This record gives sequence, structure tokens and C-alpha cells, in this order.
Amino acid sequence: SGNTYKCRLVVAQLGLPCEILTLGLLKGEARTPEFRKLNPMGRVPFLLDGDFGLAESNAILAYLARGTALFPDDAKKQARILAWMFFEQNQLEASIAVARWHLKYRGDQPDAKGLAEAQRPRGVASLKIMERHFAQEAWAVDAYSIADIALFGYTPLAPEGGFDLAPFP
Amino acid sequence: SGNTYKCRLVVAQLGLPCEILTLGLLKGEARTPEFRKLNPMGRVPFLLDGDFGLAESNAILAYLARGTALFPDDAKKQARILAWMFFEQNQLEASIAVARWHLKYRGDQPDAKGLAEAQRPRGVASLKIMERHFAQEAWAVDAYSIADIALFGYTPLAPEGGFDLAPFP
Repeated sequence: SGNTYKCRLVVAQLGLPCEILTLGLLKGEARTPEFRKLNPMGRVPFLLDGDFGLAESNAILAYLARGTALFPDDAKKQARILAWMFFEQNQLEASIAVARWHLKYRGDQPDAKGLAEAQRPRGVASLKIMERHFAQEAWAVDAYSIADIALFGYTPLAPEGGFDLAPFP
Repeated sequence: SGNTYKCRLVVAQLGLPCEILTLGLLKGEARTPEFRKLNPMGRVPFLLDGDFGLAESNAILAYLARGTALFPDDAKKQARILAWMFFEQNQLEASIAVARWHLKYRGDQPDAKGLAEAQRPRGVASLKIMERHFAQEAWAVDAYSIADIALFGYTPLAPEGGFDLAPFP
């Protein structure tokens, strides 16, 4: 998923040692009692750093990038980076990834097209907000950061959710 | 909205001086060119701290609570607080607030009930995750924090989105 991809990008770009375990979501491997005990939110990706467990892709990004140039320790910069990351999860991911889920993983269900279509307005509005910003700016906030990684995660997958990216170069 | 309420709670609980301006969203007052220039994401609530502007309720919470007990400066605690806040925006708010939007503000449209109903599984799953956690723990992360405020914002409004809170004491 785009959410997992974001974490792999940060791990790779910071050169962190990391072992990657793949779970079969469609086979319910994230819903076993063992995994639920470790990860009460049942969400993937999930980070284990020693015995510290952490769910939510963007929380993982903030945790891994803390103290690096990808998440500078300045109150206003951090706030603006977090703003784009909350936008990403609430507007961009919540529309594009949901539409993609319906079309790609349950496209044979009778309601799949309608439910994907219902995400269209929010998804297009999100892409427009990003396009307006990145037409003027090279980066989400001043320099390359975890906000750029977050925004990049799902965007290339938008066509699988039925979104045409041509108007959003 | 629940998102605005969260910011008002933090402002009040930290005793911050704050002037509140109300915009008529349904009248398009957040989409004027003047407001868009100040707030490119066009999102409400929106914070102005001097000439520093910040959108996204949870980014506003993190910014205002930085350096206080509501957002302690510990890498793991901050990460776990952010995890609940991203969960809130991606799972809880994205289902409950969307269902509430359809039923409360456009309930006379023919597709409103169906679009609200489509949010039911994600909303109920989110409430179950919170119920499991708060049946065991007093707070989201060790002590009262902006994660609790974020999770509280929309939850009491869930019945307006057609969710029955009785199974989630």
C-alpha cells in the first residue's frame, strides 16, 4: 500500500536497518489475536523498534525522522509539515486509497463503482490543492521533508482509484 | 464542527488568549480568494498566530500544546500521541464526520442516506478500537494529552451521523 511505501522510503532514505515482514491483509493476517495484542489498532504498516510498537504510517514517519533534516526541530516548520500530513490522511488518502480499494480489491462487487465514485469530489479537490501548491513550490514545506514523502505515497496510485492524473502534472 | 471544537478545547485548557472568528462554510466564506490566499488548503479551523497561518485541527493542537504536558517532549510518547491523532483523522473523523455531513447538512438529497451508510463499517470499527482501548486505559497515552482531545472532538457527534453510541460506553 501507499502507507507502507512511505515508511519504506523513510527507512531507505535515512539508511536505517530494518527487517520487513509481509502480512496477508486479504487473508486476515492483521486480525489474528496475536497481532492484535501487539497492535491494538490492527493497522498496517506497523513498526516494532525493540519492544516499542507503533501504528499509523505518518506517526512512524515522524518517529523515524525525528532529529533529522526530514523533520526539522522547529515549532512552525513541524506544524506545517504535520498539517500536510494530516491533510494527506484525512483528504488525500481517505479518498484516493478508498476509491482504489473498491476498484482494485473488490471491483466485482455491485456497489464498488458507486462507492469509488463517491470519493471522486474529495479526491479531485485534494489533487487540486496539491497542484496549486506544487506549481509554486518545490517542496511541501521549504525543503524536502516527511510531508513530501507522505503526499507522494498514494498519489502515483490514484489512477488505480479511477483518478486521471493528467491535469495534475 | 468537531475539528474546531478540539482547537477551542486546547485554547481554553491552556488558557491561551485567542480571538475566534466564525466563517459561514455553507455560504462559501472559506472559499473566497482572500481566505484562500491566507489558507491555501481552504480548511477550517485555521489558526493565525501573528503572521503564521496554520490549517488542520490536529496540527493546530500539536503546535499550541508543544512544550506543555498535553504534548510531552518524549519521542515515543509523541509518536503514540500522533498515532492516535492520525487514526482519528483517517478512520474516526473520516467516517463519523462524513456520515454526519450527509445526514445533517444534505439529508434531503437522494444519495445522502446511502453515502452515510457507506461510512458505517469504518465508523463502527473505529469506535470498537477506541472502546477496547478505553475499557482498559484512562487515557489514550499514559496521561491526558492532545490525543484524548482529538478523539473526543467528533465522538459525541456520532449519533448525528446515525451511529448508536450505547455499545461504546
